[in-house]
Amino acid sequence: MDLERYLLEKNGIINKRLEELLAKKDEYPQSLHAAMHYSLFAGGKRLRPVLTLAANEAVGGNMEDALDMACAIECVHTYSLIHDDLPALDDDDLRRGRPTCHKAFGEAIAILAGDALLTAAFEMAANSRGARKDAVLKAVGELARAAGSTGMIGGQVIDLESEGKETAFPVLEYIHIHKTGELILASIRCGAVLGNAKEDELAALTRYGRSAGLAFQIADDILDVKGSSAETGKPTGGDKKKGKATYPAFVGVAESGKRAKELADMAIDALKGFDKNADPLREIARYIVARKK
Amino acid sequence: MDLERYLLEKNGIINKRLEELLAKKDEYPQSLHAAMHYSLFAGGKRLRPVLTLAANEAVGGNMEDALDMACAIECVHTYSLIHDDLPALDDDDLRRGRPTCHKAFGEAIAILAGDALLTAAFEMAANSRGARKDAVLKAVGELARAAGSTGMIGGQVIDLESEGKETAFPVLEYIHIHKTGELILASIRCGAVLGNAKEDELAALTRYGRSAGLAFQIADDILDVKGSSAETGKPTGGDKKKGKATYPAFVGVAESGKRAKELADMAIDALKGFDKNADPLREIARYIVARKK
Repeated sequence: MDLERYLLEKNGIINKRLEELLAKKDEYPQSLHAAMHYSLFAGGKRLRPVLTLAANEAVGGNMEDALDMACAIECVHTYSLIHDDLPALDDDDLRRGRPTCHKAFGEAIAILAGDALLTAAFEMAANSRGARKDAVLKAVGELARAAGSTGMIGGQVIDLESEGKETAFPVLEYIHIHKTGELILASIRCGAVLGNAKEDELAALTRYGRSAGLAFQIADDILDVKGSSAETGKPTGGDKKKGKATYPAFVGVAESGKRAKELADMAIDALKGFDKNADPLREIARYIVARKK
Repeated sequence: MDLERYLLEKNGIINKRLEELLAKKDEYPQSLHAAMHYSLFAGGKRLRPVLTLAANEAVGGNMEDALDMACAIECVHTYSLIHDDLPALDDDDLRRGRPTCHKAFGEAIAILAGDALLTAAFEMAANSRGARKDAVLKAVGELARAAGSTGMIGGQVIDLESEGKETAFPVLEYIHIHKTGELILASIRCGAVLGNAKEDELAALTRYGRSAGLAFQIADDILDVKGSSAETGKPTGGDKKKGKATYPAFVGVAESGKRAKELADMAIDALKGFDKNADPLREIARYIVARKK
């Protein structure tokens, strides 16, 4: 299969639906909606919502049933980036090659735009068209848990508190698994739940999601060391400058690359019970460790 | 009926359930959970969740069906206070007689504790016990809309952007209706929806909620002018100092008091089709304009 074409097609579908679901850019209050659109339509890869659709496809689901949830997950991801970039947190000026939300709109609007995207996520998720109500509720609950204080936000807190300190390897793994891994896993599980996945399918996709999520974060760490700023759209070497714990800092770039590749193989292996409907997930696992940004 | 006793009893039930639903104070990451508990258990009046339970009671619902949603709404309210108090927004040092969350835990943790409470709200709402799944989904969608960019957050944005400027009266009403009114209205509607309210009951409670919500905010404005800091737990006169538009600034304290009283009467009038199960709502409308904090 042609992954590039698949990603392009799904991106188009996701972006169109996001435009439909979100309040318009010029809706009152305009500063707020402009900021939300600025960050949401900044050329992100849409990896998480694509995973939602791909997991839904793998279990033979109907794409329409998972589309609103996919959009919701992208909103959660975007809010987390806006808040991560704030001066009180990572204090980043650039994101995807453009000024961060608070640089462009000021800190107050950035905080509120993040809040509004998180809130909008749950509105679109709860109002999901098509899917069975009990599946929607289960998916909304999973998304909230994954994004919450013992999931993504928990990872963000430990990441912040570890900055500039000597970090033990288990702490680094906690950060990676929670800050990035939980939302990636939820993206996959929500897509499967909305496709009425059977128990064993959900278990296999959970194994896929855990491996793929960690592979993604290790690849991200490697890109921060090796990638060029022009490719990644943000200054590289930022992790080291901030004293952030990373995989390469512990085991070196080569060993990190090897570990990411192993995890991608494990993810693909978890899909062995699935037919060709899971090919997009297989290709995405390969892409996660091969990408240049 | 004895409102004080009613509020005390419901407060006990809500606080107990919040403790059950929320991650424990000493759960990892501890700084985050300590900050969430600090702000959530700060002696708030629990007006919004009590309204949820009272509206549920008015339509003859089962309290257990609305309790988790009531807790969720209190989490949304608390998150909004934490973020409102941040230096980039209202920059307040005191809340309910104690240092604000960012004063006690630092700005980064305060931002993330707010995010986590908002996220936890949707987790507890989606996982609501007992109630019919379609009612839960409808309520979750309503809560998200009310708290979002065209609801509460929209009001907060216009409030910020109006500070220190000459504000037209319709803008003040927009701020009041959105910043405070929307969540109060949602508290009532969600309780009714989870009690399987009939269409005409929901319409009447919506009229009640709009009037009560605006009455509440006008009473808040009056308290900021007239109340003592010891009673309200925050410095009074803050609105004027910040150049915030308020009802008393437009029409004076006496006329504002009259308007609040009229709105409370309108709220009570909207309940004329209800029996004594709506007495708590009637008493709360009176309390809203008579309270000292």
